[in-house]
Amino acid sequence: MSQSGFVSSITRQSEDFPGWYNDVVLKAELASYSPVRGCMIIRPYGYAIWESMRDELDRHIKRTGHSNVYFPLFVPRSLLEKEAEHVEGFNPQVAWVTHAGGKELDEWLAIRPTSETIIADSVKDWIQSYRDLPLLLNLWNNVVRWELRTRLFLRTAEFLWQEAHTFHATEEEAAEEVATGLAAYVSVAEDWLAIPVLQGVKSPAETFPGAVYTHAIEAMMRDRKALQAGTSHMLGQNFAKAAGIEFLDRDNIRKHPWGTSWGFSTRMVGATIMAHGDDSGLVLPPNVAPLQLVIVPIFRTEEDRRAVAGAIETLEASLRDVQTVSGPLRFKVDWREESPGFKYNHWELRGVPLRLEVGPRDVASGQGVLVRRVDRVKEPIPLAGLAAELPGRLAGYQRDLLDRARSFRDAATFRVDTLGEMSEILDGEGGFLLAPWCGSAECEKEVSAKTGATTRVIPFDAPDEGGACVIDGRPSTRRVVFARAY
Amino acid sequence: MSQSGFVSSITRQSEDFPGWYNDVVLKAELASYSPVRGCMIIRPYGYAIWESMRDELDRHIKRTGHSNVYFPLFVPRSLLEKEAEHVEGFNPQVAWVTHAGGKELDEWLAIRPTSETIIADSVKDWIQSYRDLPLLLNLWNNVVRWELRTRLFLRTAEFLWQEAHTFHATEEEAAEEVATGLAAYVSVAEDWLAIPVLQGVKSPAETFPGAVYTHAIEAMMRDRKALQAGTSHMLGQNFAKAAGIEFLDRDNIRKHPWGTSWGFSTRMVGATIMAHGDDSGLVLPPNVAPLQLVIVPIFRTEEDRRAVAGAIETLEASLRDVQTVSGPLRFKVDWREESPGFKYNHWELRGVPLRLEVGPRDVASGQGVLVRRVDRVKEPIPLAGLAAELPGRLAGYQRDLLDRARSFRDAATFRVDTLGEMSEILDGEGGFLLAPWCGSAECEKEVSAKTGATTRVIPFDAPDEGGACVIDGRPSTRRVVFARAY
Repeated sequence: MSQSGFVSSITRQSEDFPGWYNDVVLKAELASYSPVRGCMIIRPYGYAIWESMRDELDRHIKRTGHSNVYFPLFVPRSLLEKEAEHVEGFNPQVAWVTHAGGKELDEWLAIRPTSETIIADSVKDWIQSYRDLPLLLNLWNNVVRWELRTRLFLRTAEFLWQEAHTFHATEEEAAEEVATGLAAYVSVAEDWLAIPVLQGVKSPAETFPGAVYTHAIEAMMRDRKALQAGTSHMLGQNFAKAAGIEFLDRDNIRKHPWGTSWGFSTRMVGATIMAHGDDSGLVLPPNVAPLQLVIVPIFRTEEDRRAVAGAIETLEASLRDVQTVSGPLRFKVDWREESPGFKYNHWELRGVPLRLEVGPRDVASGQGVLVRRVDRVKEPIPLAGLAAELPGRLAGYQRDLLDRARSFRDAATFRVDTLGEMSEILDGEGGFLLAPWCGSAECEKEVSAKTGATTRVIPFDAPDEGGACVIDGRPSTRRVVFARAY
Repeated sequence: MSQSGFVSSITRQSEDFPGWYNDVVLKAELASYSPVRGCMIIRPYGYAIWESMRDELDRHIKRTGHSNVYFPLFVPRSLLEKEAEHVEGFNPQVAWVTHAGGKELDEWLAIRPTSETIIADSVKDWIQSYRDLPLLLNLWNNVVRWELRTRLFLRTAEFLWQEAHTFHATEEEAAEEVATGLAAYVSVAEDWLAIPVLQGVKSPAETFPGAVYTHAIEAMMRDRKALQAGTSHMLGQNFAKAAGIEFLDRDNIRKHPWGTSWGFSTRMVGATIMAHGDDSGLVLPPNVAPLQLVIVPIFRTEEDRRAVAGAIETLEASLRDVQTVSGPLRFKVDWREESPGFKYNHWELRGVPLRLEVGPRDVASGQGVLVRRVDRVKEPIPLAGLAAELPGRLAGYQRDLLDRARSFRDAATFRVDTLGEMSEILDGEGGFLLAPWCGSAECEKEVSAKTGATTRVIPFDAPDEGGACVIDGRPSTRRVVFARAY
């Protein structure tokens, strides 16, 4: 991080949410714009947040029997075009390599927007018998989708992600796998990022191009808009048929395997920022925070400095062995030659969960003042017991963030029955709208045209109930969540 | 891994080394060819080996103060061309994106062959003062260099690697950083991959395009050819000047920072295969082996099967808590319905360091037979004590591989003084040739044209000594290593 930077004020969240978001990303040095249109640079602080969620998700992926692999960055044009719906969905966003090694290529190569087609083509030889199934693969890589309007982390022409690709002998097993993928995302979102999510099925219009159905998790940001936080797709036999994958089943019949794919990307860094942040900047959950505790020494005279330094040195020694849920305690003492106020602002902007202020009077009484970033609750605390206290404090802070986000979302979730009610809420403070919908793409489009809200998911836990579609009044059996979305 | 695969014989290493290498890579399921020319698919077993060395190197990189970051896949043509030598070196190998989002691009985008130019351009704003230095960045990513002749892992059009990029206030600090990078590579090569390396400086002709000098580590493969296993470059102020990076130093003078870059790639998976393997396949060092121990049950009758299964179950419970240098013990019991001989071949091909055979007579006497992959040394061993024994056994095996590789290399390293001696050795069994060389590019080229050997490094520990260049007889002060190389 820049040592010479000064703390500049950021746009107020309540006044201009997109302006606030950009300020936080740039001034907390999470990312910056690059010389390439739509592509971003992820800086150390932002990358450390990504590494934390990536590693946690990787643990889930491995624990559930998946193996990491790598497939080429390039997809030959003829392969990308094998699955008709798929190519139609992605073609407009593809970046093409046409020249390489000083020559024009015979066949254009797509930079992968996702890897279904090249994987289906490649695993043909690996899948001969039911004994080769399930095949559970996962890739951590970069993909490119040429977006017209981009935003740091949320929508970039290139992004980092994980894409799992699996093949199964039966449709039932594939359906279970779709759930396994989604469960991993739910756990990372809620337990690691403290972001509560709705789980459900996407409308056909929002389904992945080439998939039979798509399950997704949706989160509410602090501007009450929705963000799709992970998707898990049932591909059925579509890609397997297009690629000609067949296996000999137990019953001696040759069949196409059933496939799934699921992905989780760097946009979740953006989600973490927007789900918790406030006017002072980031508010990071302890599990994902690159720094969990910052210690700020306070002194005026050299004598005081020595006393404070002595107490902090003792404290530091005790903190080195502290273990938290997300590994050894990540802490730092800020000895820079700046005022305490400057340092408070600096670390609040960066969302460090806990701050410990240690001044000469504190040292005399063997204590410090612990301040929570999210609610600024201050509390004197004995330095001798801090190491033992911290794991519990951080776990409590993590829970508090999840509870806070859930309360916020629940308070902004409304059952509505008419388009009028929807518009009123969306043009007011906004929120998630549980509304009856007949299921037709036309009505979905009309809601979007009139209110800017799209269908997010039909929640798994939505009760069956009677209702009349907010557009055409036809019967609806379960409510769908409408919201304006990222 | 394929469950239905059968063990097929592989080409003998001594008869056809390249054929042996390809057989091992494909049949041990480390990697396979892809539908994209020159690009490979890294399969689960190969990727697990890569993950192990990547994670170990990442620990070194973080421990020495570097932060992971991400920069775009694309480098605009105008940026790539900013450093004259650099573009000359890389341009012929670049893959170009010319169309994206349905349109022709105004400026072609290179797929990064390496990221010096885009990083230098981007960090301009981050480096204002000496207080912003050193800036120690590292990227784990994919790069593309359109190679004409490719080989799995060793030379592929796309490969995975780590590239560190650092900026410093003084030339001395940058020189220290070049050494820091090389030291990390030495440690990973020797302590993790059991591959002994020579450290030294590259000849000007072999120096990275745009660098002032390049340090490298060189390893000997089992065909006595050399493989460059990592490079660390002093960039001087070249890229900083080209990009216009300046900082205000302590003395109030504006200066260009000094840069370094260093990289380590998936070709090290290939190096690991070729440094240790034998006619039966892979020989993996325990630290990097995806499986360190395989247990093969041996039985004919159902009664025997039950007895063996009982003993193995007890053993498995005791193995679950075993910690090795590279984490919890990685082991597997092979209960497949295949013969023991089939299983031995299967796991030998995959280079698993230790095999435990457990049959009914073993169980009766409370023991099993432990077999080392590398030398097939067999030893009866009490099952009750195995868990406690394994960490030491694996560490010993790791040391043995390093010693074996070092003895092999030292026995194939020769001091030579004439071109005739060089040809004789190279046309015979091959090896590393320490030869006097005047330092001219012409003589270097002539050696290469006449023998196929190139200069690898001038070793740091080579003594100053008089000598006459093997080509033109001009004075040489230190010997350079010549070898045929990958």
